[in-house]
Amino acid sequence: MAPQIPEEQWAQVIEKTGAPLQYKKIPVAKPGPDEVLVNIKYSGVCHTDLHAWQGDWPLATKMPLVGGHEGAGIVVARGELVEDVQIGDHVGIKWLNGSCFACDFCQQSDEPLCPKPQLSGYTVDGTFQEYCIGKAAHVARIPKELPLDAVAPVLCAGITVYKGLKESGAKPGQWVAIVGAGGGLGSLALQYAKAMGLRAIAIDTGDEKKEMCINQLGAEHFVDFSKSSNVVKDVQAATPDGLGPHAVLLVAVNEKPFQQAAEYVRPRGTVVCIGLPAGAYLKAPVFESVVKMITIKGSYVGNRKDSAEAIDFFARGLIKSPFKTVGLSELPSVYEKMQKGEIVGRYVLDTSK
Amino acid sequence: MAPQIPEEQWAQVIEKTGAPLQYKKIPVAKPGPDEVLVNIKYSGVCHTDLHAWQGDWPLATKMPLVGGHEGAGIVVARGELVEDVQIGDHVGIKWLNGSCFACDFCQQSDEPLCPKPQLSGYTVDGTFQEYCIGKAAHVARIPKELPLDAVAPVLCAGITVYKGLKESGAKPGQWVAIVGAGGGLGSLALQYAKAMGLRAIAIDTGDEKKEMCINQLGAEHFVDFSKSSNVVKDVQAATPDGLGPHAVLLVAVNEKPFQQAAEYVRPRGTVVCIGLPAGAYLKAPVFESVVKMITIKGSYVGNRKDSAEAIDFFARGLIKSPFKTVGLSELPSVYEKMQKGEIVGRYVLDTSK
Amino acid sequence: MAPQIPEEQWAQVIEKTGAPLQYKKIPVAKPGPDEVLVNIKYSGVCHTDLHAWQGDWPLATKMPLVGGHEGAGIVVARGELVEDVQIGDHVGIKWLNGSCFACDFCQQSDEPLCPKPQLSGYTVDGTFQEYCIGKAAHVARIPKELPLDAVAPVLCAGITVYKGLKESGAKPGQWVAIVGAGGGLGSLALQYAKAMGLRAIAIDTGDEKKEMCINQLGAEHFVDFSKSSNVVKDVQAATPDGLGPHAVLLVAVNEKPFQQAAEYVRPRGTVVCIGLPAGAYLKAPVFESVVKMITIKGSYVGNRKDSAEAIDFFARGLIKSPFKTVGLSELPSVYEKMQKGEIVGRYVLDTSK
Amino acid sequence: MAPQIPEEQWAQVIEKTGAPLQYKKIPVAKPGPDEVLVNIKYSGVCHTDLHAWQGDWPLATKMPLVGGHEGAGIVVARGELVEDVQIGDHVGIKWLNGSCFACDFCQQSDEPLCPKPQLSGYTVDGTFQEYCIGKAAHVARIPKELPLDAVAPVLCAGITVYKGLKESGAKPGQWVAIVGAGGGLGSLALQYAKAMGLRAIAIDTGDEKKEMCINQLGAEHFVDFSKSSNVVKDVQAATPDGLGPHAVLLVAVNEKPFQQAAEYVRPRGTVVCIGLPAGAYLKAPVFESVVKMITIKGSYVGNRKDSAEAIDFFARGLIKSPFKTVGLSELPSVYEKMQKGEIVGRYVLDTSK
Repeated sequence: MAPQIPEEQWAQVIEKTGAPLQYKKIPVAKPGPDEVLVNIKYSGVCHTDLHAWQGDWPLATKMPLVGGHEGAGIVVARGELVEDVQIGDHVGIKWLNGSCFACDFCQQSDEPLCPKPQLSGYTVDGTFQEYCIGKAAHVARIPKELPLDAVAPVLCAGITVYKGLKESGAKPGQWVAIVGAGGGLGSLALQYAKAMGLRAIAIDTGDEKKEMCINQLGAEHFVDFSKSSNVVKDVQAATPDGLGPHAVLLVAVNEKPFQQAAEYVRPRGTVVCIGLPAGAYLKAPVFESVVKMITIKGSYVGNRKDSAEAIDFFARGLIKSPFKTVGLSELPSVYEKMQKGEIVGRYVLDTSK
Repeated sequence: MAPQIPEEQWAQVIEKTGAPLQYKKIPVAKPGPDEVLVNIKYSGVCHTDLHAWQGDWPLATKMPLVGGHEGAGIVVARGELVEDVQIGDHVGIKWLNGSCFACDFCQQSDEPLCPKPQLSGYTVDGTFQEYCIGKAAHVARIPKELPLDAVAPVLCAGITVYKGLKESGAKPGQWVAIVGAGGGLGSLALQYAKAMGLRAIAIDTGDEKKEMCINQLGAEHFVDFSKSSNVVKDVQAATPDGLGPHAVLLVAVNEKPFQQAAEYVRPRGTVVCIGLPAGAYLKAPVFESVVKMITIKGSYVGNRKDSAEAIDFFARGLIKSPFKTVGLSELPSVYEKMQKGEIVGRYVLDTSK
Repeated sequence: MAPQIPEEQWAQVIEKTGAPLQYKKIPVAKPGPDEVLVNIKYSGVCHTDLHAWQGDWPLATKMPLVGGHEGAGIVVARGELVEDVQIGDHVGIKWLNGSCFACDFCQQSDEPLCPKPQLSGYTVDGTFQEYCIGKAAHVARIPKELPLDAVAPVLCAGITVYKGLKESGAKPGQWVAIVGAGGGLGSLALQYAKAMGLRAIAIDTGDEKKEMCINQLGAEHFVDFSKSSNVVKDVQAATPDGLGPHAVLLVAVNEKPFQQAAEYVRPRGTVVCIGLPAGAYLKAPVFESVVKMITIKGSYVGNRKDSAEAIDFFARGLIKSPFKTVGLSELPSVYEKMQKGEIVGRYVLDTSK
Repeated sequence: MAPQIPEEQWAQVIEKTGAPLQYKKIPVAKPGPDEVLVNIKYSGVCHTDLHAWQGDWPLATKMPLVGGHEGAGIVVARGELVEDVQIGDHVGIKWLNGSCFACDFCQQSDEPLCPKPQLSGYTVDGTFQEYCIGKAAHVARIPKELPLDAVAPVLCAGITVYKGLKESGAKPGQWVAIVGAGGGLGSLALQYAKAMGLRAIAIDTGDEKKEMCINQLGAEHFVDFSKSSNVVKDVQAATPDGLGPHAVLLVAVNEKPFQQAAEYVRPRGTVVCIGLPAGAYLKAPVFESVVKMITIKGSYVGNRKDSAEAIDFFARGLIKSPFKTVGLSELPSVYEKMQKGEIVGRYVLDTSK
């Protein structure tokens, strides 16, 4: 029996870049032939949502705009071409809502590089509403036994760090350093690293984060960049042969950690950059980079396969992501906390409140 | 019948860093158990030799020192453990004279990364003498039909650019941009690229270089960085879909070309840096690097397998390297020309003169 | 201005498996939202078409059926979702007409492994008609300067051997043996191998084929399996170090060549099987396979990216494929010749006759 | 202070193929320039030792011969060229005692494929004696905190299965089926698979083995090939999407399991064969292998890097290998048990008894 779909729904609407959010009723959209309509139950809130609202990124947003790109919910309608997604399936709406499926990148499973992407909560309406449209081929499949609130943050943060670890090329038994290990992305990265058979060195600061990284998240070493008199030496010393980690994941890039990473990474090692600080530059000395044959690379969001794998690790109980739930109506206060840097862990919105 | 080996030989000796070269007779060394003694017939001269003499690199040289690391000659003696190299074999002495064969890198065929390498003409005596010692497992095998003067420059410059192209990951049919295409390394890189089925965009300046790159070296496009008002656009436009080359080889790095490379390289593409300008930095914007998922890597000299392959392409007649031959005694005048930037192509020394 | 599309068209129709072909007028189909309608100008004829007609493969065909899967033509209509293919574009209809784009394989660009594929001329109507439907994301883009008759056979045979060579993992400068080098697939394989920087050993029989393989198609050696008293030794001797080719491509598999391939391939080498003889088995001795660490793998048709690349090599003039053109109405006589084994090169049908 | 080395030592000597073993005193050898002398403390006993004694393999042994190739001990002397191994270091002597370090394979870290290998207990004297010679570059480094008896079986069985898992290409989170999971190699393979982040399906027979595989060794599923009415279906059903495991490791190959593996392995999956049953053949249907694009490959022993990694996993406490210790003098009774198939787990010889 088909679910009942209302004509109208509650949503958080950005009418104009930077203007106060409007929590109001708007029409429910109809899915196109290759789309599904998802009754969003929970949506995570990400820093990118703040950028979309404030319009401080080089890429223009749709306007008016419903933000949000970490939505988990239930399929309630689908277009005529959709065969593999069923009404009632649990799915996730990710940052990459859709892509062309025909360009050079889509042809090679690099759909995040598609030059004509639909971006949830940015170029198309996102998950800060009760009913959201997604391209059927792009929605993430979520096993029905998973709680939809807990899985929401995995849909962006989890997939991104998992992708970064894959891109690092580090293999089971090898060492990876996570820079910013105690933060939201970092704490997920440590858990994925362990689940993938990697050995992790956490780099961050403070005893509380040290305790968490070592005792809860599986790191084997912790280097406190505030207390260390020589981060490069300390990170290298954390590996048994002193040659440094095979890979480094920069989840909170700024220029200083980046240059250090190029120094302490093992010869032939890889530094993966996944954070997006405005105006920052990757920088490394040519001489050292050449004679050590190091690799520096950027990693963006995961493709559909990466997403399925990241969710699978979560479904197996190997990844915990602490979150706090509030109603969709309270989004403005979440943004406020975010701007003040007061958020620990992830906020998840309950769209029914 | 064993060849006659003299007690003494002519050599160019550096007694003290920066002091005038001494062209004089010195004793011929005896090979250790795992070494061969090579009667060097010809030796190329490389910029690194100049650095070794002037002592302006961070790494200390042996002293007194015989320079040179592009030597081609004939094996005249060998140690008791040597089985696979025969007296009379033609071989090359390369920059990497020997390595430990036991470290983590040697175990993975990355002997150029060995932390305890013997470097010809730098930490051990090199090829600017008539008889030079080489580790048997490291000497390059040269087919007897090849002229020893012409092959000499391949032993360093050729191997290095070939390695860089391999490291780029570019595949047959894909596009590679060579920055500094008209120079010594660049002209070899264009030829290797073509032999490997790659399509090349030459980046350099001047009509003479343009003519050479297109008509003699196999480049399909030439971008003149002095004349172009927008190098990034012009390089991207040289590829049929306008998305830019899959790889970039920087053979004459300075910071400006490097940053441009990160801009015009195709999403998912790779920028390989093989030049070693003193004090230079790799630099690329984080945001673009991440969302385009580009890779930047350093490539050093080739390993033994790369060397054998690079020589094999040369032996098949696919690589031409112009050179000029002078006597070993004339090395000081070659250095002089090198310092003045007056050298076109490679100088090769005849050790018998 | 939109092209005029007739209501009816000529087609070769199979009413019942094995029954005589009906050359008759049938309605022109309308494209669905994600489809294009292609005015087929030329279509190659492949052995698979014969299997579809005779119904002797394990997989059932649609019935009635229009066969053909090497069609080149012009887009005359498209569905509402199609953006990247324009009316007037030249495109090719391949064996893989469509796939689900959502399964584990489609997500990884292995759409030929999709468990729910649409197969042209097999499970959906194919190219033996004037107007054929294709999924927009799957049609091959053909540059307008290419002749549509000459490119038709590349769409199946060319892509398949190119894919096989990619799967072999052989790298520029390495050796590949092509078994059945003088046949239709083999002669394309030799040319692709050369264009990819590989060195080829042709294995086939007869002086005419030897002459063609060496002088026209770029093979460096020819081993005549009828004249050779020891094929394994002769193939290995064709490589300079006598260790055998790095890869073997079996385009005309039967069990004997296969077992020989496992013997003469180089240690760590790869044997790729792309032919589909009914009921045949891959077979290799365990002991030798293990201690030589050889790889044996099957390669099916190319994905969309492989297809684009294979066409690109053709467009560059590096691949020649001899063909003979007859009218669509003459298909029965082509099948007759095919059954008698009288065909040399490829037959291409002109749909206007 | 240098250790005291006796002139004579106890050894188990094979004077003639198949003749009774002689437990007697023989001279202690002196290491060559690139060799070490190892005071063997413990040596595992492997089926290969039985083959060496009985001479039923195609490759001839040295004679008289001291068998054994899983020896763990302490370095007591070293040749003049040896720098990286110290007197007092704990090391292992493996099947591959030495290799040429110069051939095409050694150049690529594939020293197990060296055409001129020294094989311990086969072409050179092995570890069934108190003092054994090993090439310094090939001895495995063993951390001093590890018990030398427990690590001995890792030196052959452990490294071999670890190498096979690496060769399978299976990635963390993917599924691997282990055929013969309850045996000596299989039980190690299950543990390595888990440590590498893989998910394992154990295939073997009997409730005791089932209990062990699931509860002690980390398998997630057990398929009993004796009880199953359809092994292919049951193995595929063990993976969540029913498409079968990404890789299969055949540790106890005979022809039937092999053909099943080719059937149940996932499309694009890999079947790795590491057992060496005399006279057996790999066999798979061409049609299925091609359209599923499966890979079948042989994996031999690990190289030096694989060995270091396999020991590292053991050192971290992730691998348990049950063994029983008896004196070196009791080797004949071990062979007897082995011939009768009465051995469960590994026998380790104490060379001091």
